Amino acid sequence: MFNDFELSADRPVYQQIKDYIRGLILRGALRGGERLPATRELAGLLGVSRGSVIAAFEALEDDGFAYTVKGQGTYVALDLADRANDRGEAAWTTDWSGRLSRYAVSARELDLMKRGIRAGKEVISFTSIAPDERLFGMNEVKRAFLDRMALEGEVLLNYGYAKGYRPLIRYLLGYMARKGVDTANQDLLITSGFTEGFDIVLSAIDRKEGAILCENPTHHTAIKNMKLHGFDIEGITMEDDGLSLEALEETLARRRFDCAYLVPSYHNPTGIVMSSHKRNEAMRLLGRHGVPVIEDGFNEELRYSGAHVAPLAAVAGSGNGVVYIGSFSKILFPGIRVGWVLGDRALIDTLESVKRARSIHTSTLDQSLLYQYLATGNLDKYLRKARAEYRRKYEWTLDCCREFIPYSRLTGDGGLHLFLTFPDGFGTRKLLEATLARGVIFTPGDQFFTDGGGGNTLRLGFSRVDDERIREGIRIIGEEAARLLGGT
Amino acid sequence: MFNDFELSADRPVYQQIKDYIRGLILRGALRGGERLPATRELAGLLGVSRGSVIAAFEALEDDGFAYTVKGQGTYVALDLADRANDRGEAAWTTDWSGRLSRYAVSARELDLMKRGIRAGKEVISFTSIAPDERLFGMNEVKRAFLDRMALEGEVLLNYGYAKGYRPLIRYLLGYMARKGVDTANQDLLITSGFTEGFDIVLSAIDRKEGAILCENPTHHTAIKNMKLHGFDIEGITMEDDGLSLEALEETLARRRFDCAYLVPSYHNPTGIVMSSHKRNEAMRLLGRHGVPVIEDGFNEELRYSGAHVAPLAAVAGSGNGVVYIGSFSKILFPGIRVGWVLGDRALIDTLESVKRARSIHTSTLDQSLLYQYLATGNLDKYLRKARAEYRRKYEWTLDCCREFIPYSRLTGDGGLHLFLTFPDGFGTRKLLEATLARGVIFTPGDQFFTDGGGGNTLRLGFSRVDDERIREGIRIIGEEAARLLGGT
Repeated sequence: MFNDFELSADRPVYQQIKDYIRGLILRGALRGGERLPATRELAGLLGVSRGSVIAAFEALEDDGFAYTVKGQGTYVALDLADRANDRGEAAWTTDWSGRLSRYAVSARELDLMKRGIRAGKEVISFTSIAPDERLFGMNEVKRAFLDRMALEGEVLLNYGYAKGYRPLIRYLLGYMARKGVDTANQDLLITSGFTEGFDIVLSAIDRKEGAILCENPTHHTAIKNMKLHGFDIEGITMEDDGLSLEALEETLARRRFDCAYLVPSYHNPTGIVMSSHKRNEAMRLLGRHGVPVIEDGFNEELRYSGAHVAPLAAVAGSGNGVVYIGSFSKILFPGIRVGWVLGDRALIDTLESVKRARSIHTSTLDQSLLYQYLATGNLDKYLRKARAEYRRKYEWTLDCCREFIPYSRLTGDGGLHLFLTFPDGFGTRKLLEATLARGVIFTPGDQFFTDGGGGNTLRLGFSRVDDERIREGIRIIGEEAARLLGGT
Repeated sequence: MFNDFELSADRPVYQQIKDYIRGLILRGALRGGERLPATRELAGLLGVSRGSVIAAFEALEDDGFAYTVKGQGTYVALDLADRANDRGEAAWTTDWSGRLSRYAVSARELDLMKRGIRAGKEVISFTSIAPDERLFGMNEVKRAFLDRMALEGEVLLNYGYAKGYRPLIRYLLGYMARKGVDTANQDLLITSGFTEGFDIVLSAIDRKEGAILCENPTHHTAIKNMKLHGFDIEGITMEDDGLSLEALEETLARRRFDCAYLVPSYHNPTGIVMSSHKRNEAMRLLGRHGVPVIEDGFNEELRYSGAHVAPLAAVAGSGNGVVYIGSFSKILFPGIRVGWVLGDRALIDTLESVKRARSIHTSTLDQSLLYQYLATGNLDKYLRKARAEYRRKYEWTLDCCREFIPYSRLTGDGGLHLFLTFPDGFGTRKLLEATLARGVIFTPGDQFFTDGGGGNTLRLGFSRVDDERIREGIRIIGEEAARLLGGT
């Protein structure tokens, strides 16, 4: 015994000794009541200082694995080996697959991430629409952390409030007001990113009609969550300046809905920005039919061309028909999961209780770090840099698509991705097979469609691909598409 | 115009100018097409440098609020004021209270936090069982953050994995193995604290029987969440060394359950540590009736007396009947919301999909900070300090209770709280009214009971109260209890 001990460099020596001896106890190599070697002897056996062994013994006592008899030595306090013999009947197994709820099974079945292609570094991947981490200002983040910690570190590490960190709530209310939103009768709940906010809102809306209205195509994670919450989904065709008002009117006249889910800026996956006119008209039509709106503020901050377009939450003026869900994740630090829900004050009060039941509150550390980063003016500086870079990349990608790809329609006014449509009958899953063989992948568009359509579409995310690889990848997609088109 | 501009010290000047002008545009004081004053002129009006005004104009252009005509000047790009006139029909209201799901309404109704007493600083409050933030080692937390950021900051701030940050998963698997758990066929999911983990597990378990078994009393947040998930709750009486085996056996023979929820260490609210013998026996009985266990690892790390007691997950040996939910929140940094679920590998795979659907993943920043803190050996050092301090406080509180309070039963083997039972017929809500009038509050025990009982019990959390105030508060509770007992 004691001859297989190996020291590593990253942890205190005494803890490694403690874990080693604990392992011997748990494996039954040391039995309850057995005397441990004297500290000096064990130090020699393990090749460590006696002080480390003494500290290890004390730590074992702290954890209840050992006890000391004065003048005699240290003994093993329990006998897990003996107990292990008793375990027989306690070590039963169950068939978990037969115990899962329909919700859990659906969550697994609808989990596209588990069926995605795992691409190596050498593959040119247009599947991500996450921000380029090289744009993050590490120094500003570090400074925000250290400044906030210095101000109120202990408080930040203890429990916070379900509704959120108050200075951040105040900041975001002001931020939404600066977008033109009338926040007078509204309130704001902090969530762990957009997704948690959306999940909480969906869980809180009654399924009287069991139906939800959205753009077609739309964000596939949103489709998944609407399905998981038991909603039947009806999509409205997208035109180049947002959803078709005619289709919206026809659909609203035909059927009743519990709510609508809309992504008015840099819509995912089409990249379309809904026009001001359509925002007004859509809000009017939805109001006339009493259908409240969940607005996804997705990428709104990235808008880098044209005049300011107000969010639906602003178009609604003093009305309470819009619940706005925002997040900086798509542009700033997705690793910090902070989003927010802005809406009718009484509604937010209920959502706060749902949030508390689900996860108590969002990390106060993350919230306060984000607050400090925002309140000291970093966002504007970062957005300036990010917008310029993403605009440059957008134009570069657009040029490459025009040069190489025989698409029939291209949409995307900016943001982090473009959306391509090929002639009817063309299959982008088949195209993906061909480009994958040549080391290029993208997201087939069908998974964004609510009606089984979109087999001839694809989404190209360019935010995390270098210029040269964008051109090379698009050239290959174009070649393979031309070949497949020629062959059909 | 321009005479109500006020500078504050905390943000760059140009951003304040930008926000000010944006405000004028949003309020309609500046109209679309209107020319903004020349930069030199505006600088004079606002009392700022011309450079700041130029930067503000550029930022307004970035955001789409302004455009520049070369040689002529900068103009307002849109007219929100005109649009506001259009808003009439878009500004409709809806009655959200009539649109809420039963789940949301129940979450609000069961939200005890909203009905708690808001105590000022002068009130002696025994309601909290959060850790004492003065014990946190701020320097170790800062070092962990800076070290991890230096190693891989950009990666940490971008998207992570639903299952969790891999080094932390590996660390926690080892950590659980060191508790004696056989992790060979198990896997681990990182969640945003215990509560999210519990909520995810409950949502994934099928309600075939619609019933769940637990200790009576038990953690009130757990009761809330079990109710919200539609389970009927049946509680098993607590004896001084854990739940009554007789009652467990009788209940299991009488009725079928989908699962059991147990808190074997420093049980909330009674503070009882379940004996080794009972852990084995309970696991046997539950196995015989095919009832899997959700084990709440609550405060396990704080155990500061007696021999090591293995978690149920360890007692289960190579079986898969236990899902263990752990968290360091009760002892270490509740503000960082990181917990974990350890269980059957295939089950965890499904829970990962549920986690992804609900919140994508837990903050990578928090996970990596915690990992760095743990992997460099800080936990042992912190636990040593925390255990010693809480043990001291526990004994002090115990002595005070014995001296002043005429209880009929006291339980609590350590941890952060004690649980008192008074004679039948005594009402601790009435006692609370009396002590509140004298500036002392505690948690009435009835909210922890599954059967409407416990009206004569209370929980005393001592972790965040100073010694002097502990004694003073307990003296007052004792006086009022004696008075009420005398009066009955």
